[in-house]
Amino acid sequence: MKFATLAELRAALASLPTGDEAAEAAVRERQGQLTKPPGSLGRLEDAAAWLARWQGRPMPRLDRVEVLVFAGNHGVVARGVSPYPASVTAQMVANFAAGGAAINQLAKAAGARLRVIPLALDTPTGDMCEGPAMDGAAFLEAVSAGAEAVPAGTDLLCLGEMGIGNTTAAAALAAALYGGGGARWAGRGTGVDDAGLRRKQAAIDAALARHAAVICDALAVAAALGGRELAAILGAVLAARHHGVPVLLDGFVCTAAAAPLAVAEPGALAHCWLGHLSAEAGHRVLAERLGLVPVLDLGMRLGEASGAAAAVPVLRAALACHAGMATFAEAGVSDKA
Amino acid sequence: MKFATLAELRAALASLPTGDEAAEAAVRERQGQLTKPPGSLGRLEDAAAWLARWQGRPMPRLDRVEVLVFAGNHGVVARGVSPYPASVTAQMVANFAAGGAAINQLAKAAGARLRVIPLALDTPTGDMCEGPAMDGAAFLEAVSAGAEAVPAGTDLLCLGEMGIGNTTAAAALAAALYGGGGARWAGRGTGVDDAGLRRKQAAIDAALARHAAVICDALAVAAALGGRELAAILGAVLAARHHGVPVLLDGFVCTAAAAPLAVAEPGALAHCWLGHLSAEAGHRVLAERLGLVPVLDLGMRLGEASGAAAAVPVLRAALACHAGMATFAEAGVSDKA
Repeated sequence: MKFATLAELRAALASLPTGDEAAEAAVRERQGQLTKPPGSLGRLEDAAAWLARWQGRPMPRLDRVEVLVFAGNHGVVARGVSPYPASVTAQMVANFAAGGAAINQLAKAAGARLRVIPLALDTPTGDMCEGPAMDGAAFLEAVSAGAEAVPAGTDLLCLGEMGIGNTTAAAALAAALYGGGGARWAGRGTGVDDAGLRRKQAAIDAALARHAAVICDALAVAAALGGRELAAILGAVLAARHHGVPVLLDGFVCTAAAAPLAVAEPGALAHCWLGHLSAEAGHRVLAERLGLVPVLDLGMRLGEASGAAAAVPVLRAALACHAGMATFAEAGVSDKA
Repeated sequence: MKFATLAELRAALASLPTGDEAAEAAVRERQGQLTKPPGSLGRLEDAAAWLARWQGRPMPRLDRVEVLVFAGNHGVVARGVSPYPASVTAQMVANFAAGGAAINQLAKAAGARLRVIPLALDTPTGDMCEGPAMDGAAFLEAVSAGAEAVPAGTDLLCLGEMGIGNTTAAAALAAALYGGGGARWAGRGTGVDDAGLRRKQAAIDAALARHAAVICDALAVAAALGGRELAAILGAVLAARHHGVPVLLDGFVCTAAAAPLAVAEPGALAHCWLGHLSAEAGHRVLAERLGLVPVLDLGMRLGEASGAAAAVPVLRAALACHAGMATFAEAGVSDKA
């Protein structure tokens, strides 16, 4: 799945599959018969129902779990918004390849395959304070790279990113979509100091002023204020929906990257769960705006799909219960009096 | 470890090991060198430090994870506090043995060994509204059964319970330890209706009035208002501390069972983390009183150690990152500017 024009992208967004209601209902019925008080497994029950609906199977599975991490560089870094130099993006991509990053360990622990896709790291996006981060062609190329990276037949897709400066882009994107300026949405990212945080807020406010004319168009916002790795996440989320692949989103940047889909088309993220709530300042509000309830809330703020991958074992536990538990009848346990 | 007298139990509680500070400090130092912004793995970093301290190893491990589920029956069930008959306790113990319960699936998914220990199921405790649930001998026997069940050399112990009526006992125990009556602490347990909830609140209030004289003594409270499976959990938590075994507590009943230790001896639960926050009404307040922050918050309310077992993969993820990640120096990644 790739997009040569913005019209093709809009068409894909206007024709979203709605999932398998019968598979979801079958899960709910079986859950009511298993040896536990009704509803007592809480969101583990919801997880089984959600996976069933979007996989289109009454007995969902997690045999093929993919972690996709997109990497990009950002022109706005020149404004001193991060304590790390832009060169760290490529260094961390090398660290991913060598197996030394957090996501390598977390993907392995989750029983998932990890792929890292660097996107033109030597060509940072434009400085969003002065012009669009990407023109239409660059945006569609990145969206298509994300969409093409989703293998059909995947049981669950975890999405994440790496890109020095990208919490600034994500905050600008969230501000453009939901209102409020830099002071509301900027967080400390990888650990910027007070002066850096003020520079970050100022950059976001400048970018919002510069692109005021496109704020009514969520996809145009994603091009003007986002970044290549964010656009790729947007494309991957959209392709996953068309391929029948449920998605676990990661933290603030990943959620902001997917948000334009929901603003342009309500319900567009129904096949997505949120792996975790990040400690990054704007994530709680953004998640609430999108109606996403996190699986985990562990104060993580690393990106790299780390919070999505960490949540995979919870989904495995949910399916283990759904598939493996005995019913009241099978176990000879008395149902409610 | 077993206790022939209450004095022996009090002596064990007065001589708690304080953990390995050097091992914890070594974890913190290594975490600061790994290829991630400092602190960005949030509670995954804390988990590694906590396991290191209580295992006494700078590189903690989770090779031997034990799930212990204690089962007991309760005289107070005659007051109509549960929608399920007391016979379900033994039926569920049989379901555990046959592998059909939620905890069987969750322990397997957690890579843990499950043992279920029924405690005199044919002899329910006394009705706490009329007299003590257990006399001193029965209490010490149950505490000792719990303590004896903890194998030395365990890397992590998950504790849980099964016992129709035991959320009533747990609520009475919490009320006696922390104040407030049945209206504050009673929840719906396995799903009691409004009339049953009123009976439950009334039973708790009657028990508090009946045992007002012992409320100043946390261990006496555990005998008078608890239950055999709760007393066994108390014994297991205490023995784990002496054996250098970190503990994951489960939901409301399990937390209430351990609470008398913390009331009698502040810091007695420092080696315990809380696997999850239960949806059962009183758990949030009880956890806050004890300073326990849950790993998971998934609306579960099943007991059986289910929420503790579900949290184990998060700890595995924490240790995978701690042991497997490269340092900035090893990976050639630029540290903060």
